[in-house]
Amino acid sequence: MAELEMRVAIAKVPRAGEVESGDTLEMIERPGGGFSFVLADGQGSGRSAKTLSHLVATRAIALLKDGARDGAVARAVHDYLYTYRMGQAAATLNILSVDFAAHKILVTRNNPAPFFAITPQGLRSFNAPSAPIGLQPLIRPQISELPVAAYTYVVLFTDGLLRAGERRGEDLGLPNYLAAWPAREGRDPQTLVDSVMQRALELDDGQPSDDMSIVVLAILPRSDAPGLRRLMVSAPIIATGHYEPPDEPEIEE
Amino acid sequence: MAELEMRVAIAKVPRAGEVESGDTLEMIERPGGGFSFVLADGQGSGRSAKTLSHLVATRAIALLKDGARDGAVARAVHDYLYTYRMGQAAATLNILSVDFAAHKILVTRNNPAPFFAITPQGLRSFNAPSAPIGLQPLIRPQISELPVAAYTYVVLFTDGLLRAGERRGEDLGLPNYLAAWPAREGRDPQTLVDSVMQRALELDDGQPSDDMSIVVLAILPRSDAPGLRRLMVSAPIIATGHYEPPDEPEIEE
Repeated sequence: MAELEMRVAIAKVPRAGEVESGDTLEMIERPGGGFSFVLADGQGSGRSAKTLSHLVATRAIALLKDGARDGAVARAVHDYLYTYRMGQAAATLNILSVDFAAHKILVTRNNPAPFFAITPQGLRSFNAPSAPIGLQPLIRPQISELPVAAYTYVVLFTDGLLRAGERRGEDLGLPNYLAAWPAREGRDPQTLVDSVMQRALELDDGQPSDDMSIVVLAILPRSDAPGLRRLMVSAPIIATGHYEPPDEPEIEE
Repeated sequence: MAELEMRVAIAKVPRAGEVESGDTLEMIERPGGGFSFVLADGQGSGRSAKTLSHLVATRAIALLKDGARDGAVARAVHDYLYTYRMGQAAATLNILSVDFAAHKILVTRNNPAPFFAITPQGLRSFNAPSAPIGLQPLIRPQISELPVAAYTYVVLFTDGLLRAGERRGEDLGLPNYLAAWPAREGRDPQTLVDSVMQRALELDDGQPSDDMSIVVLAILPRSDAPGLRRLMVSAPIIATGHYEPPDEPEIEE
């Protein structure tokens, strides 16, 4: 088998007028090998939505880091939210895992929005009905497995992306756009994320009507030095300042 | 105040002959706003070192996601390791936070290896004595604060990086190299990470004698669309396969 690498590119923007997106994205290294990406979208907007998506994502990554299997994590996070918010708060939850031990890509989805896989054989849409977590008892996730094979792209997002252009009665036409993606050329997933996000922002005249997040995973032939892993993050510095920093001196003690 | 962004670049390689580094790096979004990066290096090498650094990093990110302050996290993680491994296991632990609420950079360090800050005023080395966690009771971290100011770079790493070139009696000369970094030009931190990692690999003839990880944070004038956050990850696909995947069918249920 040729040596492969995974590359993941993610972009997130908040709804126009908000400094911070209500979507939360967290990444962890799986204790058995591989990586998981958790994308949570809390109902509503602003700080309360952000706090809700933080709570959901926090619970999910804590369980994943303990080695819990993805399906059990989604169920436990639902049960937690349903129990402690008494069925009053909803959130969508996607878990994308590249499992090095099982040699599989796993997508665990509690989200009405579909996700897509692009391979040299074409585009596949995963749109089996799936409910958000938090509202009804005993909600289950949709779990999909894909092989870890070269030139596989997995595209997932929060529903805000599908709402881009709504104000002018247009839409992103995401399936058509993705169907035209030349998987076999092995382009960087960053290119795909940038072009989708740019189109979405244009459709909303640079004023997104909802938080939008997009995650693209690509499995590609290895291009880097052996064993080398990389991570890059960029984010605007914003003032959240909603709590006072503690008074007690803690520095260089 | 000019609009600023944070950019973080990270690279990790395992010791030659290992498929996976014993160092674990995790990133979380802080619930009060901002990001934290946790870098743990477990004593020894191979799977047991990796498991140890996973345990330490897992505990740290779970506490940080609950909103615990960084100094309390380092203490609690030490106490946990010291209690449950009965003073027999050591790990180094660095927490680098960009706290949007307090508008500060915080570095919390339980690591004999120093860290560096580069600003237009020059290089500053933070090398106050600091012990790894796990071996003695009531170990405390060294905590350093830096302002969130443009053209500030923070460079931290695991001790493997300082050992590059040991076999041929050379060393990386990291302080000299960093002192020459032109902070005010605002170069991408990826450039700094790549050049340091490439020099380290050359000194070890492409066969690192230890796991090496380097993290560079830069605070720079904003260059991206308003509100846009980005994340990119790449990693070779390896076979860890040390446990059997569960038998029970869990797919599309």
